[in-house]
Amino acid sequence: MKVAVIGLGKAGLPLAAVIADSGFEVVGVDIDERKCEMINNGINPIPEEAGLDELIKKHGGKNLIATPSYEDATDCNVFVVIVPLLIDEDHNPDFRILEDAFRNVGKVLKKRDLVVLETTVPPMATETLAKRWLEEESGLKLGDFYLAYSPERIMTGYSISRLKKFPKVIGGVNEESGTRAFEIYRKFIPNLHLVSSARVAEFIKLIEGCYRDVNIALANELFKIANELGVDFYEAREYANHEYCHIHLPSTGVGGHCIPVYPWFLIKEMEKREKFNYVRLLRVAREINDGMVNYWAEKIVLECMKIDKPLNDVKICIKGITFRKGVKELYHSRNLALAKLLMEKRLNVFVYDEMFNKEEIEKLGLKWIEPNEADLVFDAFELKIAWNV
Amino acid sequence: MKVAVIGLGKAGLPLAAVIADSGFEVVGVDIDERKCEMINNGINPIPEEAGLDELIKKHGGKNLIATPSYEDATDCNVFVVIVPLLIDEDHNPDFRILEDAFRNVGKVLKKRDLVVLETTVPPMATETLAKRWLEEESGLKLGDFYLAYSPERIMTGYSISRLKKFPKVIGGVNEESGTRAFEIYRKFIPNLHLVSSARVAEFIKLIEGCYRDVNIALANELFKIANELGVDFYEAREYANHEYCHIHLPSTGVGGHCIPVYPWFLIKEMEKREKFNYVRLLRVAREINDGMVNYWAEKIVLECMKIDKPLNDVKICIKGITFRKGVKELYHSRNLALAKLLMEKRLNVFVYDEMFNKEEIEKLGLKWIEPNEADLVFDAFELKIAWNV
Repeated sequence: MKVAVIGLGKAGLPLAAVIADSGFEVVGVDIDERKCEMINNGINPIPEEAGLDELIKKHGGKNLIATPSYEDATDCNVFVVIVPLLIDEDHNPDFRILEDAFRNVGKVLKKRDLVVLETTVPPMATETLAKRWLEEESGLKLGDFYLAYSPERIMTGYSISRLKKFPKVIGGVNEESGTRAFEIYRKFIPNLHLVSSARVAEFIKLIEGCYRDVNIALANELFKIANELGVDFYEAREYANHEYCHIHLPSTGVGGHCIPVYPWFLIKEMEKREKFNYVRLLRVAREINDGMVNYWAEKIVLECMKIDKPLNDVKICIKGITFRKGVKELYHSRNLALAKLLMEKRLNVFVYDEMFNKEEIEKLGLKWIEPNEADLVFDAFELKIAWNV
Repeated sequence: MKVAVIGLGKAGLPLAAVIADSGFEVVGVDIDERKCEMINNGINPIPEEAGLDELIKKHGGKNLIATPSYEDATDCNVFVVIVPLLIDEDHNPDFRILEDAFRNVGKVLKKRDLVVLETTVPPMATETLAKRWLEEESGLKLGDFYLAYSPERIMTGYSISRLKKFPKVIGGVNEESGTRAFEIYRKFIPNLHLVSSARVAEFIKLIEGCYRDVNIALANELFKIANELGVDFYEAREYANHEYCHIHLPSTGVGGHCIPVYPWFLIKEMEKREKFNYVRLLRVAREINDGMVNYWAEKIVLECMKIDKPLNDVKICIKGITFRKGVKELYHSRNLALAKLLMEKRLNVFVYDEMFNKEEIEKLGLKWIEPNEADLVFDAFELKIAWNV
């Protein structure tokens, strides 16, 4: 058995490394040639991922060959697709990268091969889109090949341990695909569970994300109420939470590739079916989380009003612009959105982030400052506004 | 030290019994004379409460004297108020019972007495309303007496063990009240935590309820989506839930005195302050949960359409009408609301509930049936629609 992993990003590379470490030959396909070269030289391109350095050093260029060409995967029998799926401005999924990956796999697909999709996708994408793309390019029919879905559950920094310990589900687009995919995947995923269909497996991943988004929105809403009432939200949360109560932490919103994206997959699918009534909570939660930048912008402006200086003379530092503390990633970062919103208001906004140097910040079109040089610092992760005295 | 417990309902009586069992003399005040008599004869009026029979038998009429008269509490030094607070048709709190209790306590209040409110109340009710009522009736000023808030956290059936083990918070309307209330309450509540104010303690109880209501609404929304997609919600939930994900169970809505009521306390308070934006999620969650009866009514009607019989000839049985399985309580029961909704549609609706006999059901203006005598049975707790063949 030889496994192709399509996409060597933050989710794909740890998976490819774990499969290689389980004793299988792995061909990793990624468009980024520089990254492929690094991997083949045993150098880990995602250093923040605990345990990955070691695995890439051990298997890169040996058991794990990285390549930009699908042709190098011709003799593989298992194809794992784990490429990004983004949403456009209207929150609709943009399938171009995914379609390209599946069509390229289709070109090298042979009878009895197994294809497993890991990217988080809208409901039924595996049984409709993925199946169609594979059939069209390969000339084969489902049954000649097997197709299953197994959502990645990585978290940058903890992906290797998650693959080794965390429960993971897999489901086929038909029964035979499920059984076969389960038998193969369990060789490198110890805590694997076969569910009744690819559709259920897709849904599992989506509702987990919706739980997070809605509960963060709830925390943000309760935080605003607590502030209005003059109650310390954190004190209240500490005692409200127990075995049956899990109030989350407030924030400037929800960023990254996952949580702010997945609810839209369900919202858009239901709205297409005119079931607007079925996604009211998911929609409001999205709006609340995205609206938190306005809440914080107001708080900051009101704070600036307190001193005897023209508003746009106050040097404001937004401390922390990544979407999550300690992860160098700006996709849908609400902290970055907050900085830009204040800039649009013509305030004197600077940013600081321990993950970025001055040049990187300036390349983003932002002004850099050391927090202690600013007049007012908003710590975007701690949600604290403080004056420098 | 002698303690008065005002209100011997499902929350008050277990608390009174636990205080008596800790070695204190307790006077329980309740308007229901028959109930008082039972208690004084050692008979427990809430048999579904585990462990309460024993305590009432041991202390009723001895350490625990039940009485309808506040005058019997004249020599008490600690007054615990734990009476119902309901909401009206417009979801505004109806303070009449609470005001009456506080004014009556005010009449017997002496210098250095402590008053603790346990009823779940809107934000700041303790420091504003309760304080005012006590001062007006007693002629004393806060400082002469002490006032604190400690929300009950009972759950019918488990209240005694909750009082003995579950964390409980207490907070004063001023610092001295908090400290004093904490010192006294810890004599009978082992897992007690002093928080910084009565207001925080009130907020803790409310947000716990909001967490539950919003998460039940989320479960209901995801359940509807799963059904629309042809996915088994329960299978998906089983695998989605883990250490960081706690998707709740779907239902016909949320009933009882607690969860459907508490979010309104925050919603109404924020709307009074014109902060409509701060309670969007709480409001939508309430609407989703209350709207589940319409969802289930449609499901039942569509099922009835499947057979060759006029709609109103189909004998429909709603199995389960209490707000929670095994608790004989109909307040805001959504199962009862569903039965009534179907009756308004002129369908041939019967009900069955293991907690009620035929006569009790008929007194409620409903028709009783054995489930196996009906054509179609909707199990309101299991959410299953099934034909009798």
